[in-house]
Amino acid sequence: MFQVPIGVSARHIHLSLEHIALLFGNGYQLQVMKELSQPGQFAAKETVGIVGPKGEFASVRILGPARQQTQIEISRTDAFALGIHPPVRESGQIEGTPGLKVVGPQGEIELSQGVIVAARHIHFHTSDAEKWGIRDKQLLKVRVNGERPLIFEQVIARVSDQFALDMHIDTDEGNAAGVRTGDLAEWLE
Amino acid sequence: MFQVPIGVSARHIHLSLEHIALLFGNGYQLQVMKELSQPGQFAAKETVGIVGPKGEFASVRILGPARQQTQIEISRTDAFALGIHPPVRESGQIEGTPGLKVVGPQGEIELSQGVIVAARHIHFHTSDAEKWGIRDKQLLKVRVNGERPLIFEQVIARVSDQFALDMHIDTDEGNAAGVRTGDLAEWLE
Repeated sequence: MFQVPIGVSARHIHLSLEHIALLFGNGYQLQVMKELSQPGQFAAKETVGIVGPKGEFASVRILGPARQQTQIEISRTDAFALGIHPPVRESGQIEGTPGLKVVGPQGEIELSQGVIVAARHIHFHTSDAEKWGIRDKQLLKVRVNGERPLIFEQVIARVSDQFALDMHIDTDEGNAAGVRTGDLAEWLE
Repeated sequence: MFQVPIGVSARHIHLSLEHIALLFGNGYQLQVMKELSQPGQFAAKETVGIVGPKGEFASVRILGPARQQTQIEISRTDAFALGIHPPVRESGQIEGTPGLKVVGPQGEIELSQGVIVAARHIHFHTSDAEKWGIRDKQLLKVRVNGERPLIFEQVIARVSDQFALDMHIDTDEGNAAGVRTGDLAEWLE
């Protein structure tokens, strides 16, 4: 049986260097609060506000390090509360997505795009993928045996020697399955 | 292929006659805003506020008619926002569940119990259940082919000649599957 640890992602934001400067001041460096499962990735001490046409969230965690482009990942539940309709996308694919206002201590930005509902996926280290015979971009079927058992279909495999084995789902998916970070999922096919 | 229409339930409250009187005044009658899929059930024009230790929701829809006991059904996401930890339960099984403060225009009540996360279920009219060979309380496996396809396991069958065919899931489950009310689910086994 092939088991994968689950990481349930709450709403969060990845910022470009330019946007970090606009929100926190020139040359500002994000501070590490906690290392994440993927090597080099961290939850920062800093948060920002995000403001939509219908609602807002005051303290959205920044994940570092800085990226090429700013991206906000929210659940569909969050999207209804904010009053926007982002598509389900893989990370990085933000063309044509809605924006939001982002509020920091030193300034704010009106994003024209960048908000997605993240498509569920599993990070595989190349060695894990080889061992299990899984290729990058393969769509997997994965059972999650939590309080509310279910099988996720079309879970995207992402393979890299920069990745650590981890399945990423959002809070709607985690809550629908009754699981939390650290629980295990089972790869079926 | 056996298909079932899906109803995605947002947070809502069922009130006892006694609680309707305390919140809206003696002898108050709920007004029908919209008939629901189950015969005799309706969304009322009236809403109430619910207040938890960490957060609150201002306008929670009342579903009528009055019931023997007051029951609040919320998603796990809502529960985190409110700061309470209700169990996943079948409707009516509220022993040992947490309460909340409920605020109406004429008064408020401090419930000692009654908040649940509703266990997903399918209402079958007796004739549908007979046709498909399904018994009351049977646990079903049901595929939902939305934007984010998944298979719900342990979906509880509820059979009655008072029911109309409908699968009830909450907003976390609907959002995790990328479906909305009126979409179809497919019974697998």
